[in-house]
Amino acid sequence: MTKKFSFTLKNTENKARRGEVVTAHGVIQTPAFMPVGTAATVKAMKVSDVKKSGAKIILGNTYHLMLRPSAELIEKLGGLHKFMGWNGPILTDSGGFQVMSLSKIRKISDEGVEFSSHLDGSKHFVSPERSIEIQHMLGSDITMIFDECIQFPATFEQTQKAMERSISWGARSKAAFKERDGYGIFGINQGGTFKDLREISAAKLVEIGFDGYAIGGLAVGEGQKIMFEVLDYTPDFLPKNKPRYLMGVGKPSDIVGAVLRGVDMFDCVIPTRSGRTAQAFTRNGTMNIRNAKFHDDAKPLDDKCGCYACVNHSRAYLHHLTKANEILAAMLTTEHNIFYYQDLMKDIRAAIEEKRFTAFAKDFMEKFGDEVVEEEVVVS
Amino acid sequence: MTKKFSFTLKNTENKARRGEVVTAHGVIQTPAFMPVGTAATVKAMKVSDVKKSGAKIILGNTYHLMLRPSAELIEKLGGLHKFMGWNGPILTDSGGFQVMSLSKIRKISDEGVEFSSHLDGSKHFVSPERSIEIQHMLGSDITMIFDECIQFPATFEQTQKAMERSISWGARSKAAFKERDGYGIFGINQGGTFKDLREISAAKLVEIGFDGYAIGGLAVGEGQKIMFEVLDYTPDFLPKNKPRYLMGVGKPSDIVGAVLRGVDMFDCVIPTRSGRTAQAFTRNGTMNIRNAKFHDDAKPLDDKCGCYACVNHSRAYLHHLTKANEILAAMLTTEHNIFYYQDLMKDIRAAIEEKRFTAFAKDFMEKFGDEVVEEEVVVS
Repeated sequence: MTKKFSFTLKNTENKARRGEVVTAHGVIQTPAFMPVGTAATVKAMKVSDVKKSGAKIILGNTYHLMLRPSAELIEKLGGLHKFMGWNGPILTDSGGFQVMSLSKIRKISDEGVEFSSHLDGSKHFVSPERSIEIQHMLGSDITMIFDECIQFPATFEQTQKAMERSISWGARSKAAFKERDGYGIFGINQGGTFKDLREISAAKLVEIGFDGYAIGGLAVGEGQKIMFEVLDYTPDFLPKNKPRYLMGVGKPSDIVGAVLRGVDMFDCVIPTRSGRTAQAFTRNGTMNIRNAKFHDDAKPLDDKCGCYACVNHSRAYLHHLTKANEILAAMLTTEHNIFYYQDLMKDIRAAIEEKRFTAFAKDFMEKFGDEVVEEEVVVS
Repeated sequence: MTKKFSFTLKNTENKARRGEVVTAHGVIQTPAFMPVGTAATVKAMKVSDVKKSGAKIILGNTYHLMLRPSAELIEKLGGLHKFMGWNGPILTDSGGFQVMSLSKIRKISDEGVEFSSHLDGSKHFVSPERSIEIQHMLGSDITMIFDECIQFPATFEQTQKAMERSISWGARSKAAFKERDGYGIFGINQGGTFKDLREISAAKLVEIGFDGYAIGGLAVGEGQKIMFEVLDYTPDFLPKNKPRYLMGVGKPSDIVGAVLRGVDMFDCVIPTRSGRTAQAFTRNGTMNIRNAKFHDDAKPLDDKCGCYACVNHSRAYLHHLTKANEILAAMLTTEHNIFYYQDLMKDIRAAIEEKRFTAFAKDFMEKFGDEVVEEEVVVS
């Protein structure tokens, strides 16, 4: 018997929430971090290793997959789960963000977005209906509504207009979504850094009614301080009994700070992208393993980490692989980072259960709040 | 108690040999194929997966490792086994071949070779004594003598001169080698395509006395037919009770044909390099997975293969990953190829044990003897 898509709140500590999402392909303990599998692969990792990290759900990108290899082909081959060999839950974004950030030419109308592929210039059109259809063909456990993403900074008027269009597109997305047990659709709250707009957006989305609510339009260059200000109020506008997903976030301290403010789900390319640029996350902070000081360091990246790299290899070895541009450097550092992120989420969940998350977060922010993580410019 | 380095011949069928090499770090069943771990990594593979493939011994490159990260650093960190996390036997080449093929400027004298690093132009000098010292610092189970490698084609006189210098360097290499239980040193037979020179080289090497004998100077562009002609007589010049190692060979049919002629050990970058260029070896021949015909092929690369890629993924998925330039494409295709090579060696060993290798080889050469494998130009 397939279970209904559901969210259960198990514990709370102030605004922080410990919950459980049930999907067709499995259960997700929240707060949860979803590794990004853009092109049907979490870059430089086997899915079996993604699974070993403790990750229960991964993210796929509709924009990338519709262009290559195409949603039609993936459907023909049995869906995205089978195509990439991942049998756990998958969330797909709607393509809205990448259409804006990656495609070359675009014409936006109320109907949808016309754009040229960044791969070969071929023309494509995505509407809310088409995005939902694609996500259905992919077989996503969690479908995202198609929304209009704008650049930061934006004026109140620009933000309001895009937010209102996103609401209209959200209603069309919901209408186009084919209900199936275990499969859900999330709305996306917009409104930039404007509290009024965030509140209106939330109310209208709730009126349409979704299985979960994402917070979009953050982590687009506004910085952690402003993001936290928006998160000080936005989660309160969203229903308590549905999961809240902060899209595209973030570095470890972003996640801790967002959980503190009531967010349940996260995705970000930082751990994987950093893994390909020799940046490792550890319990002692970030380190760039390319740094010459690691050339003879026999210690593992993080002596409290149980990942393959930390169990088997030294910083000196990783430094060497990085200097030699070996693929194994990207493989090991990525896997370590994904393990680090999953361990962090495990620690966060345990801290909430044990009512010590507020102290955990304070301590974490003091240690790592100011940490600079090499910035990503484009999600690809 | 550490065992002596030894070779035991267990079965033979005509010239084909089934043997066992005992080293400090483990036992090698021959005929054996050694994956190449140039820069202390079998490219795009974790050592745990190399181990899973059934490979018992891997090869490291003295030239690369002396330049980066340096033999001194590897020794300080506990030797090459510990540095790269491989606890099985390791054979290191002497650097002779790469000094000739990769370094920028060189001055060759009876003393040794002066060259500039292909990485940063820094000057280095390698003599037989220095090569053996480096291999000792690396902790190689099987050390190779430092020899002079020449380009193909070469005249009789050029070949003779290099062969004679290699004998002299071989004697110095042997003298410099520090005997330890479980560790051996191999001589390298030279002489190009000249039977007389091969015979003289073999006799002089045997006079010096080594734990095994390599056949060098082949697979340098002469083609399979000429290589097999040389292999029709050269192994007969070498002692029956020592392992014979054909350096840098080769594609599957090269290996089968060489085993038929009495060779026991092989190394080659073909399976790993091919893995990074989308070329897969299978029981049905080679395939380039980039080929458009695989775009919707739901079958595994090879349905008789038990590697991770074949168990979990389709050709269509690998095709997609390759087109998308995903690191996972290189990872999966490389691992598959290494598994294929190890399975091939297992089949070869079983066929010799069961006295059906001659038929096996005939069948294999008929099926795959003409197969063109994308040529490697430089061993890097």
